[in-house]
Amino acid sequence: MASISTLGVQVGHWSDPERRTGCTVVLCPPGTTAGVYVAGGAPGTHETDLLQPGRLVEQVHAVVLTGGSAWGLAAVTGVMRWLGERQIGFEAGAARVPIVPAAVLFDLGVGDPRAFPDADAGYAACTQASSTWQLGAVGAGTGATVGKVLGIERAAPAGIGSSVRQLPDGALVAALLAVNAWGHVVDPRTGAIVAGASDATGAFVDSEALVLGTGHGGANGFSSPNTTIGVVVTNVPLDKAACTRLAVVAHTGLARCIRPVHTSVDGDTLFVLSVPQAQPAPAPRLALEIGAATVVADAVLSAVHAQR
Amino acid sequence: MASISTLGVQVGHWSDPERRTGCTVVLCPPGTTAGVYVAGGAPGTHETDLLQPGRLVEQVHAVVLTGGSAWGLAAVTGVMRWLGERQIGFEAGAARVPIVPAAVLFDLGVGDPRAFPDADAGYAACTQASSTWQLGAVGAGTGATVGKVLGIERAAPAGIGSSVRQLPDGALVAALLAVNAWGHVVDPRTGAIVAGASDATGAFVDSEALVLGTGHGGANGFSSPNTTIGVVVTNVPLDKAACTRLAVVAHTGLARCIRPVHTSVDGDTLFVLSVPQAQPAPAPRLALEIGAATVVADAVLSAVHAQR
Repeated sequence: MASISTLGVQVGHWSDPERRTGCTVVLCPPGTTAGVYVAGGAPGTHETDLLQPGRLVEQVHAVVLTGGSAWGLAAVTGVMRWLGERQIGFEAGAARVPIVPAAVLFDLGVGDPRAFPDADAGYAACTQASSTWQLGAVGAGTGATVGKVLGIERAAPAGIGSSVRQLPDGALVAALLAVNAWGHVVDPRTGAIVAGASDATGAFVDSEALVLGTGHGGANGFSSPNTTIGVVVTNVPLDKAACTRLAVVAHTGLARCIRPVHTSVDGDTLFVLSVPQAQPAPAPRLALEIGAATVVADAVLSAVHAQR
Repeated sequence: MASISTLGVQVGHWSDPERRTGCTVVLCPPGTTAGVYVAGGAPGTHETDLLQPGRLVEQVHAVVLTGGSAWGLAAVTGVMRWLGERQIGFEAGAARVPIVPAAVLFDLGVGDPRAFPDADAGYAACTQASSTWQLGAVGAGTGATVGKVLGIERAAPAGIGSSVRQLPDGALVAALLAVNAWGHVVDPRTGAIVAGASDATGAFVDSEALVLGTGHGGANGFSSPNTTIGVVVTNVPLDKAACTRLAVVAHTGLARCIRPVHTSVDGDTLFVLSVPQAQPAPAPRLALEIGAATVVADAVLSAVHAQR
């Protein structure tokens, strides 16, 4: 059984279950290279420009996934403080600067609309970090839901999901997501809806059929909380450009099981982290790409199954 | 029944069935705005930089989809000649310059590896253009296949597919694709493989399970022909930035039914065309996005069903 702990990342949650928000920090082992692809139309992000290939910095020290929409980016300050206290950061001569990219989801429409993870929340998430972590309504997934076509009242709970696969040569690829999509979730192996808006009888509603058939829900997407964010982690050695390319492919895993996805009311953003290993395992590129799409899809299913 | 002809585009094929290559031209009505998103890792494209939002040109006169890998881009010259003879082009003072973005697929691994659509082929495709068109192994789809995990010998025929949907307010969205993916094709409603590599018994092979289980096929992707290219057409008024955004969402339709897709051995590229209408139909943005993903997925299925 493949174990995420082999990858050396540590994950910590800070959760406010009453006000229904939270944040999740992914602490990276030294020498972790990162890339990102923002596929959604309504993203909220931090330190993603430096991840573009050709820009100076190649490595990151942590990634923050957070609720609270753009307010939640404040959590990064606390993560930087925690890293700074440990002398972890980009060596910039006069100082070390922790590099902490982040992405947000919109959970202001559930719980307390004024609540968001702040710097202390980010710091607290770091203190909780370990190589095992909870799934479901914790961390950045505390206020997460899927299936907003009938409004937030009829959405289904979602949250944090994760998955890991071993590649043929022993390399690993894993995904950790906070799933809060506008769309519903299908099992790509069967096409069946497994989480989403439910009608008065409790049956799941096909968001797309409803919008295409009647226009219902097509106009009110902005009023409900959306976005899926996450990280894909592998021990296959990748430079920043290769991480960026893999992030594009990883997003196809979301498209397999979230319908619709990457919309103008979702800020879907995936980071790819390549962690160093004493014995780096090479992997055929296609196997890694297939693995990345697979763990992302499996992590989406995990996020909604963890809520049952 | 929604009819693509309402959109005013005309499509012409040039096919060389013996040498298994060809090209397809999409002639646009005057005032057509375009965007593009290149999701694949191995694209071959022409005039896509000018489609980036913020750059001068907003409108295009035709789009070329072609076999022949990068050689096939030569077909554009003939399409420009045909347009130039009709005084169609961007008014640049001293001259009118036809704006003809293009994308290629790799079909050099089937038929004659030295055959490719040239300028005369592009011109010939224009002379054949009409508001109805053939599907399957014609035009850019003449040499197209899907499911390359066991090599080109065990791949399934694919080709040109198209689909159209009416949106709730009467607007239309349509897709025309040339499907030549490395991956296999599933029906997203059931998860069942409907086209792909077949084993010695004739049963379809799950490319992803094979690669993840054994590594088979993961290294030889470059030697086989891949890539899915196409256009999404709507009569909803969109500027170039909105076309670009819609192109990202349209690619999720590919990810629903091609596994894997957007890989490093596919040059997957989709153009979005917004055609002018006397009575422009507004559409909720989400309905248009869902419609775009839906017609792209349906066009993939159409491309492989047309071959049965």
